[in-house]
Amino acid sequence: MSKTEVTTLTAADIQKMLDVSPFNLFLGLTVMDADPVKQEVTMRSAMRPEFERRPGSKQWHGGVIASVIDTVGDFAVGMMVGRGLPTVNFRVDYLRPAVDTALVAVSRVRRAGKSVGVADVDVFDEKGSLLAIGRGTYSTLDTK
Amino acid sequence: MSKTEVTTLTAADIQKMLDVSPFNLFLGLTVMDADPVKQEVTMRSAMRPEFERRPGSKQWHGGVIASVIDTVGDFAVGMMVGRGLPTVNFRVDYLRPAVDTALVAVSRVRRAGKSVGVADVDVFDEKGSLLAIGRGTYSTLDTK
Amino acid sequence: MSKTEVTTLTAADIQKMLDVSPFNLFLGLTVMDADPVKQEVTMRSAMRPEFERRPGSKQWHGGVIASVIDTVGDFAVGMMVGRGLPTVNFRVDYLRPAVDTALVAVSRVRRAGKSVGVADVDVFDEKGSLLAIGRGTYSTLDTK
Amino acid sequence: MSKTEVTTLTAADIQKMLDVSPFNLFLGLTVMDADPVKQEVTMRSAMRPEFERRPGSKQWHGGVIASVIDTVGDFAVGMMVGRGLPTVNFRVDYLRPAVDTALVAVSRVRRAGKSVGVADVDVFDEKGSLLAIGRGTYSTLDTK
Repeated sequence: MSKTEVTTLTAADIQKMLDVSPFNLFLGLTVMDADPVKQEVTMRSAMRPEFERRPGSKQWHGGVIASVIDTVGDFAVGMMVGRGLPTVNFRVDYLRPAVDTALVAVSRVRRAGKSVGVADVDVFDEKGSLLAIGRGTYSTLDTK
Repeated sequence: MSKTEVTTLTAADIQKMLDVSPFNLFLGLTVMDADPVKQEVTMRSAMRPEFERRPGSKQWHGGVIASVIDTVGDFAVGMMVGRGLPTVNFRVDYLRPAVDTALVAVSRVRRAGKSVGVADVDVFDEKGSLLAIGRGTYSTLDTK
Repeated sequence: MSKTEVTTLTAADIQKMLDVSPFNLFLGLTVMDADPVKQEVTMRSAMRPEFERRPGSKQWHGGVIASVIDTVGDFAVGMMVGRGLPTVNFRVDYLRPAVDTALVAVSRVRRAGKSVGVADVDVFDEKGSLLAIGRGTYSTLDTK
Repeated sequence: MSKTEVTTLTAADIQKMLDVSPFNLFLGLTVMDADPVKQEVTMRSAMRPEFERRPGSKQWHGGVIASVIDTVGDFAVGMMVGRGLPTVNFRVDYLRPAVDTALVAVSRVRRAGKSVGVADVDVFDEKGSLLAIGRGTYSTLDTK
């Protein structure tokens, strides 16, 4: 497969793929932007009661934030490769509590190679404060 | 605080703490074992449709597996320290697809220091195959 | 300790600290820039035969690159805190082979908290190609 | 390539491969054991003055420990695959200072797949205290 044959995914493509996945639907991810030139994807997720770490706290459980990071990073690399990808591994660092806010997650591709891709994800609150950061490796191997 | 003052958590303590957290309730975690001598905590989580990566696939979304890892590792270190802890960061590696199975997650404390603790988490299917592994750092600092 | 009491490190301070450490001396790190406003530190390391992965290959061994990442990230957070810091953990991702080039490592602080700090490190070749990326957590706890 | 065609590496094979690599020679790694049934490789590295974090401290610089982890993990997966491998990424967690001791690093393969392998590495001092832990992903893809 030559490189020119790759059709990158649009925001609408990614939204459609998210919306058929039960857990991604639960995360309530909305694609805000998908830019193959900047190699960046931005998604938004609104708080819901099931996401809380403690009842009534409006604080996001770290697992939900990790799930958002995994998914946004996946589709950032996936955008460049033209399909959703298996995650090889990822790391998440929690910087500040995420309380009473929607999350805005911006993922930037650091490398989209033939066998693996790497993406960084910055997670912000609605006011632009950095809450958490992620870094993931995804399998880009064409197994067909 | 002297070291002898620490009261480790029991399986019942941990279960009680899990069951007041909306997202941990959603994960459906059951504490199977909490052993402060071996410094190991084991939990089980059954599949539910909202966890699926793709509809009807019975395959766990990686984000749910990451969430289980974060939580089980947290309570392994937390067991030794006597309370739930903020996650500093964690890494998850996916080894095999998790399909049509409950998850059994075993976490072992690698170090429970005065400011941070580190735990490993192995996630198995019901037949004992290793599906994913995690490693997390948790803040053990007593801020009171 | 109030925040205003912190004196950030200058490039000369950092260079002096590097040059009393035997292994950092071996790495041959030169501080190019240390900017506490941008919270960024840049260092350069020239190739030497002992760094090679294979003899005559001029390819950097990954362990040397990891060592550079650990050190540059440490002094980025350390610059903000006013001293060298113990590393809690770090991750390194290798993106492209580093061959026949000096390394330029740019570290940016993502958070400098009271107990831990987090820094990202991008490692470039002399032409500006991204070779490897790191992310580290350092203990900022004042134990005095 | 069928699985039966793979010839695993012996301790002598690994030692020979280490000893042609300038940086691995600098690390002074000795293969103590290479067991393809347990999927474990153990190496030892003695302290030398160039490894010190601070002069006269006899404390290992974290970068050297990270380098040992990278290399031992690499050859653990490599043993199973029959050759040395490119590192995709790795994480190291420092648990206790490594002072006035040789290092004994034990790596266990967690998965040796067709495109990537994952290995854990535990680093001990000579008395058996756990000093640091690593987890690495290595490319097992046969590019020939």
